Amino acid sequence: MINPDEVLLRNTASLSEMLDIEKKMLPHGSGHFPSVSVLKEIIIYIKNIIFPDFLDQQRKNSSIKSFFIGTSMERLYSLLRKEIEHALRFTDNSLSQVFESEAARRALMFIDSLPEIKKLLYTDVEAIYNNDPAVDNYGEVILCYPVIQAMVNYRVAHSLAISGIPVIPRILTELAHSSTGIDIHPGAKIGRYFAIDHGTGVVIGETCIIGDNVTIYQGVTLGAKNFSLDGNGHPVNIPRHPIIEDNVTIYANSTVLGRITVGHDSVIGGNIWLTNSVPPGSRILQQKAMEKTSPNDNEL
Amino acid sequence: MINPDEVLLRNTASLSEMLDIEKKMLPHGSGHFPSVSVLKEIIIYIKNIIFPDFLDQQRKNSSIKSFFIGTSMERLYSLLRKEIEHALRFTDNSLSQVFESEAARRALMFIDSLPEIKKLLYTDVEAIYNNDPAVDNYGEVILCYPVIQAMVNYRVAHSLAISGIPVIPRILTELAHSSTGIDIHPGAKIGRYFAIDHGTGVVIGETCIIGDNVTIYQGVTLGAKNFSLDGNGHPVNIPRHPIIEDNVTIYANSTVLGRITVGHDSVIGGNIWLTNSVPPGSRILQQKAMEKTSPNDNEL
Amino acid sequence: MINPDEVLLRNTASLSEMLDIEKKMLPHGSGHFPSVSVLKEIIIYIKNIIFPDFLDQQRKNSSIKSFFIGTSMERLYSLLRKEIEHALRFTDNSLSQVFESEAARRALMFIDSLPEIKKLLYTDVEAIYNNDPAVDNYGEVILCYPVIQAMVNYRVAHSLAISGIPVIPRILTELAHSSTGIDIHPGAKIGRYFAIDHGTGVVIGETCIIGDNVTIYQGVTLGAKNFSLDGNGHPVNIPRHPIIEDNVTIYANSTVLGRITVGHDSVIGGNIWLTNSVPPGSRILQQKAMEKTSPNDNEL
Amino acid sequence: MINPDEVLLRNTASLSEMLDIEKKMLPHGSGHFPSVSVLKEIIIYIKNIIFPDFLDQQRKNSSIKSFFIGTSMERLYSLLRKEIEHALRFTDNSLSQVFESEAARRALMFIDSLPEIKKLLYTDVEAIYNNDPAVDNYGEVILCYPVIQAMVNYRVAHSLAISGIPVIPRILTELAHSSTGIDIHPGAKIGRYFAIDHGTGVVIGETCIIGDNVTIYQGVTLGAKNFSLDGNGHPVNIPRHPIIEDNVTIYANSTVLGRITVGHDSVIGGNIWLTNSVPPGSRILQQKAMEKTSPNDNEL
Amino acid sequence: MINPDEVLLRNTASLSEMLDIEKKMLPHGSGHFPSVSVLKEIIIYIKNIIFPDFLDQQRKNSSIKSFFIGTSMERLYSLLRKEIEHALRFTDNSLSQVFESEAARRALMFIDSLPEIKKLLYTDVEAIYNNDPAVDNYGEVILCYPVIQAMVNYRVAHSLAISGIPVIPRILTELAHSSTGIDIHPGAKIGRYFAIDHGTGVVIGETCIIGDNVTIYQGVTLGAKNFSLDGNGHPVNIPRHPIIEDNVTIYANSTVLGRITVGHDSVIGGNIWLTNSVPPGSRILQQKAMEKTSPNDNEL
Amino acid sequence: MINPDEVLLRNTASLSEMLDIEKKMLPHGSGHFPSVSVLKEIIIYIKNIIFPDFLDQQRKNSSIKSFFIGTSMERLYSLLRKEIEHALRFTDNSLSQVFESEAARRALMFIDSLPEIKKLLYTDVEAIYNNDPAVDNYGEVILCYPVIQAMVNYRVAHSLAISGIPVIPRILTELAHSSTGIDIHPGAKIGRYFAIDHGTGVVIGETCIIGDNVTIYQGVTLGAKNFSLDGNGHPVNIPRHPIIEDNVTIYANSTVLGRITVGHDSVIGGNIWLTNSVPPGSRILQQKAMEKTSPNDNEL
Repeated sequence: MINPDEVLLRNTASLSEMLDIEKKMLPHGSGHFPSVSVLKEIIIYIKNIIFPDFLDQQRKNSSIKSFFIGTSMERLYSLLRKEIEHALRFTDNSLSQVFESEAARRALMFIDSLPEIKKLLYTDVEAIYNNDPAVDNYGEVILCYPVIQAMVNYRVAHSLAISGIPVIPRILTELAHSSTGIDIHPGAKIGRYFAIDHGTGVVIGETCIIGDNVTIYQGVTLGAKNFSLDGNGHPVNIPRHPIIEDNVTIYANSTVLGRITVGHDSVIGGNIWLTNSVPPGSRILQQKAMEKTSPNDNEL
Repeated sequence: MINPDEVLLRNTASLSEMLDIEKKMLPHGSGHFPSVSVLKEIIIYIKNIIFPDFLDQQRKNSSIKSFFIGTSMERLYSLLRKEIEHALRFTDNSLSQVFESEAARRALMFIDSLPEIKKLLYTDVEAIYNNDPAVDNYGEVILCYPVIQAMVNYRVAHSLAISGIPVIPRILTELAHSSTGIDIHPGAKIGRYFAIDHGTGVVIGETCIIGDNVTIYQGVTLGAKNFSLDGNGHPVNIPRHPIIEDNVTIYANSTVLGRITVGHDSVIGGNIWLTNSVPPGSRILQQKAMEKTSPNDNEL
Repeated sequence: MINPDEVLLRNTASLSEMLDIEKKMLPHGSGHFPSVSVLKEIIIYIKNIIFPDFLDQQRKNSSIKSFFIGTSMERLYSLLRKEIEHALRFTDNSLSQVFESEAARRALMFIDSLPEIKKLLYTDVEAIYNNDPAVDNYGEVILCYPVIQAMVNYRVAHSLAISGIPVIPRILTELAHSSTGIDIHPGAKIGRYFAIDHGTGVVIGETCIIGDNVTIYQGVTLGAKNFSLDGNGHPVNIPRHPIIEDNVTIYANSTVLGRITVGHDSVIGGNIWLTNSVPPGSRILQQKAMEKTSPNDNEL
Repeated sequence: MINPDEVLLRNTASLSEMLDIEKKMLPHGSGHFPSVSVLKEIIIYIKNIIFPDFLDQQRKNSSIKSFFIGTSMERLYSLLRKEIEHALRFTDNSLSQVFESEAARRALMFIDSLPEIKKLLYTDVEAIYNNDPAVDNYGEVILCYPVIQAMVNYRVAHSLAISGIPVIPRILTELAHSSTGIDIHPGAKIGRYFAIDHGTGVVIGETCIIGDNVTIYQGVTLGAKNFSLDGNGHPVNIPRHPIIEDNVTIYANSTVLGRITVGHDSVIGGNIWLTNSVPPGSRILQQKAMEKTSPNDNEL
Repeated sequence: MINPDEVLLRNTASLSEMLDIEKKMLPHGSGHFPSVSVLKEIIIYIKNIIFPDFLDQQRKNSSIKSFFIGTSMERLYSLLRKEIEHALRFTDNSLSQVFESEAARRALMFIDSLPEIKKLLYTDVEAIYNNDPAVDNYGEVILCYPVIQAMVNYRVAHSLAISGIPVIPRILTELAHSSTGIDIHPGAKIGRYFAIDHGTGVVIGETCIIGDNVTIYQGVTLGAKNFSLDGNGHPVNIPRHPIIEDNVTIYANSTVLGRITVGHDSVIGGNIWLTNSVPPGSRILQQKAMEKTSPNDNEL
Repeated sequence: MINPDEVLLRNTASLSEMLDIEKKMLPHGSGHFPSVSVLKEIIIYIKNIIFPDFLDQQRKNSSIKSFFIGTSMERLYSLLRKEIEHALRFTDNSLSQVFESEAARRALMFIDSLPEIKKLLYTDVEAIYNNDPAVDNYGEVILCYPVIQAMVNYRVAHSLAISGIPVIPRILTELAHSSTGIDIHPGAKIGRYFAIDHGTGVVIGETCIIGDNVTIYQGVTLGAKNFSLDGNGHPVNIPRHPIIEDNVTIYANSTVLGRITVGHDSVIGGNIWLTNSVPPGSRILQQKAMEKTSPNDNEL
């Protein structure tokens, strides 16, 4: 006959002892973590600021709209600077007095980048709208399309990443990854009028550089072909993902790997495996599939 | 030294001014939007009605089951007609007095389509069950399989779409897209006994026509090959996606594009790129992959 | 003029009558169902136990950490045994007196497997960290990477599945599937140091056997090529998925089907369709894509 | 310098040791407790059943109203029998096999008393309406008056108490006490057309017997004058509270103590201290207050 | 053996039949009800507007404070006009087209009264602060004192009541009654600098008129002594509560009844029963209690 | 025709201007406020620690109980020290660097007082149980009686108050006041075995001193008779409330005022107005009410 208390106590004791591998992984900082649920709230305030006419009703007068934007701005600042402080302390415990003011400074830097982020996101809405015969109006894109969430989170994360804030950018893009299937690394550089259609399975790597007016479809990978290891066996973080120039379209499920360049105005077909640079204006298509009749109904 | 108030005020002012592109995107209607969270609640009531024995316990007597279905029906009607009214006002502000009764009328039309939707969904459950050796009982399919959520949302959205209700159908299918990775356009026509296995990355375009007993696997795209632009540069919405006849199976990650026909009783293998019609009974397979030994361990 | 009450009553009556197909699907058991929301809570307690230093702050002293682990353990046990009881009753209504004690016994068996599950999960964290040049520290992996959620849910589900608990394992892996796009069947066997990168669209079938140090990328399918039907037309559940030996890497969007063996130390490139066994040390690459210039700008 | 860990651990150890008085108080049963939040939910279902036209809208057709009542009934039964089972186990751990069926039996007994409870509550609404010149319609009484919550909880608690269910009746009346300031013991017997106005501070003791058409005001106590102790020093539970006959009114802040009888058609004024029986038709008033002019402004 | 289904169905049928008394109570209007939870939210927005420096932090700059007030104002207007519309329809179903604009008009009237309400509430805070030796600062009064909630709800309810809005005023004051034990009828007229200390059990009737600088303590009733009935037996709503002139203090648990006048600068002691007018400057005290020694320890 | 935007803007402008009285009330500190909802959570952790066997089930083994207490302790410390820091900053903005460590120090002081608070609270449970013939077991007292919440909040608040923490003590006792109608000032000193029965309307002033084994009933006020004003017109905070010696009982609705002493073993009857000291062993009763027959049925 099993004694439940004995089992619970024995396993509590066992699991309270740290594994060697666990000790190695302990955070270096002073035990602060950004809060995922607060970061979700921050994204809502940013959307309120960027798309004020689509996320609430009855706001016509511009003074009243300013109240709404101003209040969201103040909440954004108040929450973001705390999360940035947690993120700074998460990776560094050496200079704790400075973190509070440093976090406030970087939160304000981010707020100063919001007008530019807004401009870029409206170009993305425009590009998505122009690319989809099934859409009737812009509101449908802003309200319904997962790709918008992916792009909001990416453009915010990218802005935070280039000012050197750790951890938060990746949490933001993984939140979008989880709800859209679109995985854009915060370090990637993406130009104006960027459209992703459907999007599930898209991967855009850390060192990608993407020009203006680029369109990609579901399942497209812009990835690394290989990587070097440093002395500790950990991969070296060097440019290793594609450069996609202006006006390129890449169709569904294609895989583009390595520090290659896809020249401007090229079209890459679907299900393509591409590891070499291609010149401007290229058209790349898959070979024809062969056809056969199988003798066995259940076998493909 | 930065003054936070100054930064917040400056950016509030800047972001309160509408961009030109933003003005162009303003909703035409009178500022009404369907509520995503209410639409989620509506789907729960529909599931209560369709699968009453699987979503609650202890209901054996049929009179008591009727109470449960009837109460769900009344909540469904009460919520749905308000959301339809919001959707009608979202795209049109001309004839506001009519919208309330028009929305009630269309909500009742939808309710009259529920028995047919129920029948179709049970054929889908049957098809998924028959297709998966790993499943032990129907309850597991209904309770656990994301594809069921995708099919409930799609079949509801399709019914609303054909009665001309804007915006809501797309929100419903995008909700399912977000949680399942399966992106079915509400406009697609899908027959009985439709099975998707695994499903992540499936895309089914707006003008697809799919027969009975069709099975598709993860990563399959039934998409458009190209599209024409109208005078404003916006794509023209014409039939441009495949017709899949009865009894077809399409394996993982294949891409079927354009207004082509896959003849009945065909099997399309995985990772196929197909842009031509194929006759009934076809078997399409990928060419063999080549093998090589790379001299460099880190390179593929 | 439509009478709403009449429509609601008529459809309630119609939908309260069971379809023939619906009767066939009725649960065999006594109307108990595991609760999805409680299962989500259970996963949170398990994460608290496995990663105590990453999911809360300020816990340095090991006695205090034990409180946290012990409290989570007790809640886990209290919730899990009820859900196991529901699952047992869901599929069997014959011997109801036994289920309560049987559920407690299996919940304790699971708790006894937690130290081993913890060890395996830390090898997965290590493997993911070593595989990704973009990651800065282990905490980022544990806090942000969806693949961690997929592996926690899979390893828990696998442990529950091998002790014969119905329904719950599949619900757990489908929860992870929904939020990560990674679909691992609870029946699959997976060794130590297993890494999935990006992950959206990955499918790992029920009878897969995967060795140590295996890495796979987004869109990879380890599936079945075909299956036999039993006398009732339901597929037979036999070994039908690949065996992947130690130290294998499979790149994005490849499809590996059937009871084949990928020999140890092999590398499978991206977008490969593989249905034959390959010997140890193999390198499998896709044929080169062909290039063409299309005369028509809108056609691919 | 204080070490927080040391303080927390020391006090955890100290507080984990049971006091002697604590051991004496340990529950006799097997560790089951009714859930206060579920009991709140149960009261909501009962209100739905009793006042269906006031707690939801648009229900005119009686068939649809039946769905609403029937669904509430089923939820009520499902929740109530579990809470009754917890209550039975809370006070008795001897005969555990019987509790589940016994709890179901008593829950059904309670449901059979609902039509009578409904009739009584409507007489209370009528009496409150007739007693208050400030009220415009019955809906205002049902929606806004705390006394209605006090009477719903009391009448439900009384019905549960007379079938011998422990603990739950008192929790229900204390919930109402907390939100209304009206403290009616579940054991009190109260006739038809009972009105309390304002109500804060009203206390009605366990062995009170109150006739029809009785009205009392805020701050009225119907209490015990004294009590005898049993051999353990615990008070003996015998009839010790007043009997109030039909058509009596008791004004604000009066205190009526002991097993006395206030004869029918009597009026007791405010701020009265009454410990003797009074005959039918009595009028009891306080002596006149005296008046004085104080020489000191700050002293009363 | 009881059949649960039979009991549930039988009682559902019984309870679905309307009692005669129930039919009489049916709402006259078209089935609309104000929402209690929305009214609670409305009170929060009003508190944000009235006490902006106490209900959030970090707001120093007056422009930023305006954003906060303006956003709260817009939400207040948007919610309040809907609840007013529900309230108007609750009591009248004759002229439904007019209600929407009429509700908007009255919501704006209320908003125009907010500056005056704010001024009055600050005088109440001042009076409470000045009356309590135990309080250290104004923030403690605004944050902690239930009487503030009672006064906010009363002053808002009074403003709504004098513009003729039904039902909502009473719900607001009963919400405060429930959480503070202070029951102020929305119809009462109360001057500036009104202080209630402790407050539990205070009742202030519908036709009270209270001057400036009045202070009352817990348990004080300002009530009606009697009332006349109209032809239907319903009480007639005429002036029947006291007039309390400026600078009066009434101590704990006193009861002041009828249309009498308590002259300015009077002090009414505790536990007084007062049914006659008293001239300005009166001092009213209770007679001395008598003392006795009881022979019986248990009897009082 | 009213323009809503104009009304909202005009009133926003008006309400954004600070009243003179508002400026005077501005908090002196740096804009920090304790959070009421966090303080509620803190009380829950304290109850978990004090009554571990009554607030959860299935905890028998003392090691497992320690986990529960230890985890609650850690959460308590983590939340409380932040709230204390907010409270310190609320009233003082001069020495901000010190507040964090000072708050931690005082939170630990409070935790060191928990064993003593626990002992006192168990004496209160015992006293309430012994005083109430209607109660069956201790669990019913701990689970259902509002007076327990009042005593938990008071004893915690008193402990915090004597270590000089501002604002929080009063918030805690006002929370209990709101849900129980019992208003005990945190400054009052209360001995062991303190029982309040029913409790609504009880007021215990700041400078009260109450001995052991004291019992009081609903509506009892232990208040101040008068107070002196300081030079600013604010009342002076000196001893002004009663001293109640051991073994005293005070019955319902009595008012005891001023710095008087009620000698040990006295009994004060109900509805008594007492402003003089009484010697040990006193019995104080109200004069008999007079009886009359009123000629007018509607007049009292």
